Amino acid sequence: MACPAFFLFQWADRAELIRAGRSPMRALVVDPKLTFQSHNPDPAPTAGESIVRVSLAGICGTDLELMRGYMGYRGIPGHEFVGRVTDTTDPNLRGQRVVGEINAACGRCSYCRSGLARHCPERTVLGILGRDGAFAEYLRLSNENLLPVPDSIPDETAVFTEPLAAAYEIFEQLHLARDRTMVVLGDGRLGALIALALRRENYLPIVAGHHPEKLGRLGALGLATSLEQDLKERFDYVVDCTGRGDGLRRATELVKPRGTIVLKSTAAAGAALNLAPLVINEITVVGSRCGRFAPALAALEGGRLDPRPLIDGTFPLEEGAAAMDAAAKSSNFKILLKPS
Amino acid sequence: MACPAFFLFQWADRAELIRAGRSPMRALVVDPKLTFQSHNPDPAPTAGESIVRVSLAGICGTDLELMRGYMGYRGIPGHEFVGRVTDTTDPNLRGQRVVGEINAACGRCSYCRSGLARHCPERTVLGILGRDGAFAEYLRLSNENLLPVPDSIPDETAVFTEPLAAAYEIFEQLHLARDRTMVVLGDGRLGALIALALRRENYLPIVAGHHPEKLGRLGALGLATSLEQDLKERFDYVVDCTGRGDGLRRATELVKPRGTIVLKSTAAAGAALNLAPLVINEITVVGSRCGRFAPALAALEGGRLDPRPLIDGTFPLEEGAAAMDAAAKSSNFKILLKPS
Repeated sequence: MACPAFFLFQWADRAELIRAGRSPMRALVVDPKLTFQSHNPDPAPTAGESIVRVSLAGICGTDLELMRGYMGYRGIPGHEFVGRVTDTTDPNLRGQRVVGEINAACGRCSYCRSGLARHCPERTVLGILGRDGAFAEYLRLSNENLLPVPDSIPDETAVFTEPLAAAYEIFEQLHLARDRTMVVLGDGRLGALIALALRRENYLPIVAGHHPEKLGRLGALGLATSLEQDLKERFDYVVDCTGRGDGLRRATELVKPRGTIVLKSTAAAGAALNLAPLVINEITVVGSRCGRFAPALAALEGGRLDPRPLIDGTFPLEEGAAAMDAAAKSSNFKILLKPS
Repeated sequence: MACPAFFLFQWADRAELIRAGRSPMRALVVDPKLTFQSHNPDPAPTAGESIVRVSLAGICGTDLELMRGYMGYRGIPGHEFVGRVTDTTDPNLRGQRVVGEINAACGRCSYCRSGLARHCPERTVLGILGRDGAFAEYLRLSNENLLPVPDSIPDETAVFTEPLAAAYEIFEQLHLARDRTMVVLGDGRLGALIALALRRENYLPIVAGHHPEKLGRLGALGLATSLEQDLKERFDYVVDCTGRGDGLRRATELVKPRGTIVLKSTAAAGAALNLAPLVINEITVVGSRCGRFAPALAALEGGRLDPRPLIDGTFPLEEGAAAMDAAAKSSNFKILLKPS
C-alpha cells in the first residue's frame, strides 16, 4: 500500500499549483492524430467535481478506434484509470485512491433518475465524448462518479475496473441460463476479461480467436479455448468481442436459432450485413456497453478475479505512440500507461 | 358456409384423379422468374401428409423477395392459404377446411421436441424452402401442420392466419410492457397486421409510413398513425416492418437507449450498417419470423380481429403476374389469389 503522507504531499503540492493558476501537464492528445504534449493545460476544478492524479491508465480498443476517427473525438483520450484525488469539494473523497465511472451525466433526466446515468442524453464521456480523459497527469470527474478502491485491490488490478464493469454489464442486461452453451468471440483484451468474468460467475465459456499464443495464455488461466476456425457447433450465446465491423456477421453464423448475441464491438466503420438470418433464426442481439463499477470492484476484491496476467507492458506518457502500437499489436492483451 | 356435399364430391373427384396417376394442375412457378403453368404436376400424396385444395392464398412481401432471388427458391411460391383437405391419411382431417403451419419439420430434433419445429434445421418451408407452396390448385402438407378453421372465420379472414401468427410471434418472444411507447415502422401489409394485433392486445402502437392514403385507411380502423418523417420522439419499442434492408438503420434512429427493436424485415440485399449505435445505446434487436397459428386463429375467431379491410384485390392464378404487380404496388395492402 502506498504511503498516505506521500499523497497528502502530492495533494498539497497540487493545491499550491492551482492557487497559482492553471499549470502545464503532460498528456496525450488526439487532434486527430495522437501526440504527446508536455504543456497541455491541466484541468481546472469545478463545483461538484474532483481532480484526480492518474496513477495508471489502460488502453482500450475504443482508444485505438478514436484515433481512426470514431466519435470524431478531439482531446485527451483514456477512460480506464486508477488514481488519487488531489483536489475536491467532497471531504470524503479527499486523498482517496479512486476509480471513476466514465459517463458524466445531467442527474435530472429520466435516465439519470432511473439509475441509467450512463445513457443520459446530455452526458459527456471521459476521454470519448466532450470530456478530456485519463491519458494525462490529471483528470477531472464528478464527485459522484468516483469510487474509492478497497485496499485489497492493487493499482494494477484496479485499472481493470472499467472494462470489467463492461463485462459485468452483460449480467445486468440478460439472464444467462447456465445450462446453455456460450462462446466469447475474440481473444483480445475485452474478450479475455469477459471470459474471466463469466468463469468467475460459474459459466463455462469457450474463448475463440485467431491467436494460439494468447489462447494458450487464457487456457493457463483456466479458460476453455478454441481457434475460431475450429468451431464446428453453434452456441446458445455468442459474445462478440472481435472489435471488428463484421463481428456480428460471424456471430450470426455461430449462434443457434433462437439464440442470443451480445454485441460488444464498436468500430468506426460499418459493415454490410445480410440481416435475413437474424430474422429467419429469430436471433436476439443485445448491444452492451459500459456497466456499473460496483459489481466489478466486488469481483476484484480480495483477488477473486485477477486480471494482472493480461498486462503486457506499461509505458510512460512520453512513449504514448509506442504504447498505442503495442496495444494495437494482436499478440498483446493489455497495455497500461503510467502518467505519474 | 360452403356446402359439405360439394367438397365431398371434390374430394371423391380428386381421389379418382390420383388413382389414375398424377394429373396436371394450374400453378405459378418461380424459375427464377414467375410464370403461370397450366400443366404443372400436382402433388402426390405421401404418408403422414394431406392434399389440400387451395381456396384462397395471400401474397406476402417474402413472395416478392423470392422473385428477386431471396433464398434461391425454385418452385411454386405461396405460404399463406386457406383450403379444403381433399386427400389424407388422417380421418379427422378429411374434408376439413384448414390453414397450415408452413414449416414442415423432422419431429425428432431438439427444436421439434421443444415445440419450436419452425426452427428445425431439417425443415422444409411451404413455398419458401424445398417445398412447393400455395399458389396452385393443390398443395401437400404434413397432417400435423393443418389446423381446422372454426366456422366463424370466413375464408377471406382465415387466409390472414399465417401473417397474423407472425405478428403474434412477437408476444411469444418478448414481454412488452404496456406503459411503454411503440411504433410500427412501415405501413405495408405486415405492419398493418402487427399494428392490428398490438391494438387487439391493448397496446397503443403508432403506425408510421410514407403513404398518407394507407395511413388514412389504418386510422379508420382505429389505429394511431404518423408520416414517418413527422416522428420527432424516440420509442421504447420499434417494430421494423419496412421490408427494406435499411429498416434496421432507421429503427436504430427511432429507438430509445436501452430500447428494443423487433426486426421483421427480410430482404434479399444486405445493407451497410454502422453497428456502434446499437452498442452505445445498448439496444436489443429481436429477429422475429413465423409464429404458432393457434393464437392467431383465436384472435380471428368471432371477428374479434377483422383483417378484411386490408384486402385490395383477388386474382385468379392465370393473372399471377398482374397479382404480383398489384402486391408490389405501394398503395395496396393485401392481394389474394383464388386458385380454385
